[in-house]
Amino acid sequence: MTGVSASLSPDLSADRALDVRGDFPAIPEGWAYLDSAATAQKPRVVVDAITRAYGETYATVHRGVYQRSADMTLAYEAARKRVAGFIGAASADEVVFVRGATEGINLVAECWAGKQLRKGDRILLSTLEHHSNIVPWQLVAERVGAAIDVVPLTGDGRIDLDAMAAMLTPAHKLVALAHVSNVLGSVLDARRATELAHGVGAKLLLDGCQAVPRMAVNVADLGCDFYVFSGHKLYGPTGIGVLWGRGDLLEAMPPYQGGGSMIDRVSFARTTYAPPPARFEAGTPHIVGVVGLHAAIDYVEGVGLERIHAHEAALVREAREAMAGLNSVRVFGPEESAGILSFAVEGVHPHDIATILDEGQVAIRAGHHCAQPLMDALGVPATARASFGVYSGPADVAALIKGIERVTRIFG
Amino acid sequence: MTGVSASLSPDLSADRALDVRGDFPAIPEGWAYLDSAATAQKPRVVVDAITRAYGETYATVHRGVYQRSADMTLAYEAARKRVAGFIGAASADEVVFVRGATEGINLVAECWAGKQLRKGDRILLSTLEHHSNIVPWQLVAERVGAAIDVVPLTGDGRIDLDAMAAMLTPAHKLVALAHVSNVLGSVLDARRATELAHGVGAKLLLDGCQAVPRMAVNVADLGCDFYVFSGHKLYGPTGIGVLWGRGDLLEAMPPYQGGGSMIDRVSFARTTYAPPPARFEAGTPHIVGVVGLHAAIDYVEGVGLERIHAHEAALVREAREAMAGLNSVRVFGPEESAGILSFAVEGVHPHDIATILDEGQVAIRAGHHCAQPLMDALGVPATARASFGVYSGPADVAALIKGIERVTRIFG
Repeated sequence: MTGVSASLSPDLSADRALDVRGDFPAIPEGWAYLDSAATAQKPRVVVDAITRAYGETYATVHRGVYQRSADMTLAYEAARKRVAGFIGAASADEVVFVRGATEGINLVAECWAGKQLRKGDRILLSTLEHHSNIVPWQLVAERVGAAIDVVPLTGDGRIDLDAMAAMLTPAHKLVALAHVSNVLGSVLDARRATELAHGVGAKLLLDGCQAVPRMAVNVADLGCDFYVFSGHKLYGPTGIGVLWGRGDLLEAMPPYQGGGSMIDRVSFARTTYAPPPARFEAGTPHIVGVVGLHAAIDYVEGVGLERIHAHEAALVREAREAMAGLNSVRVFGPEESAGILSFAVEGVHPHDIATILDEGQVAIRAGHHCAQPLMDALGVPATARASFGVYSGPADVAALIKGIERVTRIFG
Repeated sequence: MTGVSASLSPDLSADRALDVRGDFPAIPEGWAYLDSAATAQKPRVVVDAITRAYGETYATVHRGVYQRSADMTLAYEAARKRVAGFIGAASADEVVFVRGATEGINLVAECWAGKQLRKGDRILLSTLEHHSNIVPWQLVAERVGAAIDVVPLTGDGRIDLDAMAAMLTPAHKLVALAHVSNVLGSVLDARRATELAHGVGAKLLLDGCQAVPRMAVNVADLGCDFYVFSGHKLYGPTGIGVLWGRGDLLEAMPPYQGGGSMIDRVSFARTTYAPPPARFEAGTPHIVGVVGLHAAIDYVEGVGLERIHAHEAALVREAREAMAGLNSVRVFGPEESAGILSFAVEGVHPHDIATILDEGQVAIRAGHHCAQPLMDALGVPATARASFGVYSGPADVAALIKGIERVTRIFG
């Protein structure tokens, strides 16, 4: 491990200062949890907020006249305002609570693309998209008779925006891209992507699942039209996520699911709908999920997204440098990446890597990472992936490298 | 309050035995929480299961090779099996985890009715349905050109199955009814509804939101085709619910949302889908919601659904009898009902009733209860509603009656 320590960059002093591991009760001493891109562990303040919401202050929202319900409604709407501030939305009314990023994308596919797109229109995706940013577009494209084009990657695994510039035509009505790749950690130049998309009159949706936990995001600065992310990857609860959309776009969209809360007036003769965001939140919402998400946002902003970004980028750099010293290890993706690193060990299936690492208390993910087209492009069936979080540190990198060394010995 | 005590029926000895209030940390001494039909308070075992899942054993499901994730996957799938046993499903594969009953109905409307129904086909609902069992059918009916018929109610507020028998034709492909009314507590004769629907070849969906917390439900015995319910009304977490569907029906349905986990193989040329239930669970699921739902089912089955039913029915009877003694109070719904009671006080808006009751630490709901067509049928803009749970007791009824007496004095 001397090699790893020796490769410490100046950034790692900042990294060491980020000593928050004690905030995370579910990470035992000696466990290297390197699957944060799948889901993040929860700080105590989030767990406590959830426990308190169920165990002390619980009530429904929007409907109760009594004080407890009025208070919970205030908490629910305060969370919406907090999310709006967190991502730089112009108004809390642009924030729709959904189950997760997947549902957010499906909602836009169904209610925006499903209504706006006509036969012959085109949707532009990229090779590195997560299935959740591919399949919803395939479903809607098939229904309306639209076509899908795919932006290739640069040699080092970033979405090739020069290629995108050459591909875009006025037939493209929507571009949907990952802000940060869940496999490679590649960071999109989102402002340039916006300029390119808007240059042909297309809307831009960004899948921000892997971005919001790792970098400061401001949708007004980015200029995009839709932005989605999941709470559980942002150190928050499961079952909650956010769809942000520009007010005028949401306003023009028909309802998604029908039910309580999303209506204005229901009769069997004629039903009218509430304005956004209520129009898109049918049924009793995931009240406690929203409360927990608020706590999670408070937590990450308390630590500071700039610091988290620098911290994780430094860990990835450290891991890349150490892996570069290991024969038979191939590292995917760009030099500069946001907290996520995919790799392969020659002659060893990624599942075997993950299994052996697990024996050494190192949790990574092995598989296609819901990105089979990217696996096809990389020419592999799967990769091993280590992904970092705010609680990760040099000891986790050291454990990872030690584990990989063990893999190479076993299979060497 | 002597009148109330004097009206105790023999059932209330059983009721008194159901002394579980201490299990519910969020209900303070002296608070009459009578809004369980909106959402139920949570027993400590549910809160603890959630706290433990986030704070000790947290991991993603289905994807991780490491032990923690394998364990959470086992817990997730064990919950599915537990739900199947709870409602008498033939197989865990017939249990789809959704956000709540609203999403369950929307899923069936979109993926079953949206594919099976043709122009001229008909859907049969009833006057007392919740908006969540009206609006999804309106949305799909409009799209496919189907028509909606509405079964009227009996004089005492039950779905009139004789009228339904006279209305059904072979053009009816789907009947969707509340198992228990969320406003009146009326219990449907679900077996007869099944026979009638199946008699013309229609499928039957039951909205079981208000039934599963209040009575033993066995879908095999009922003979229905789809059954939905929400976790948060069953003393479980928010953001989780269940759609049960007969295996052959689910098997024939196309995907709902696209994303991770619901696929077999994704490429830009062609994507294939997983079998049910995975086909309908795109994206990272509400893992902890599922774990909490498991704990909630264990809890209610530990108390016993038969006992809960008898207990709540006795409380409703007691409240009805006491209200009968109050001039100017009108009680809606049938004599026998499952834990839910709507009423009005002559000349007083239900919101004012609820506000005054809240001052006396009695939490009821006032409004249209997401059932505007029923309000129209009752000839009122809103009702006041008291709804009971496993933790409710005679003291809550007494507080309710005392509060109503105060309302009548203030407005008298």
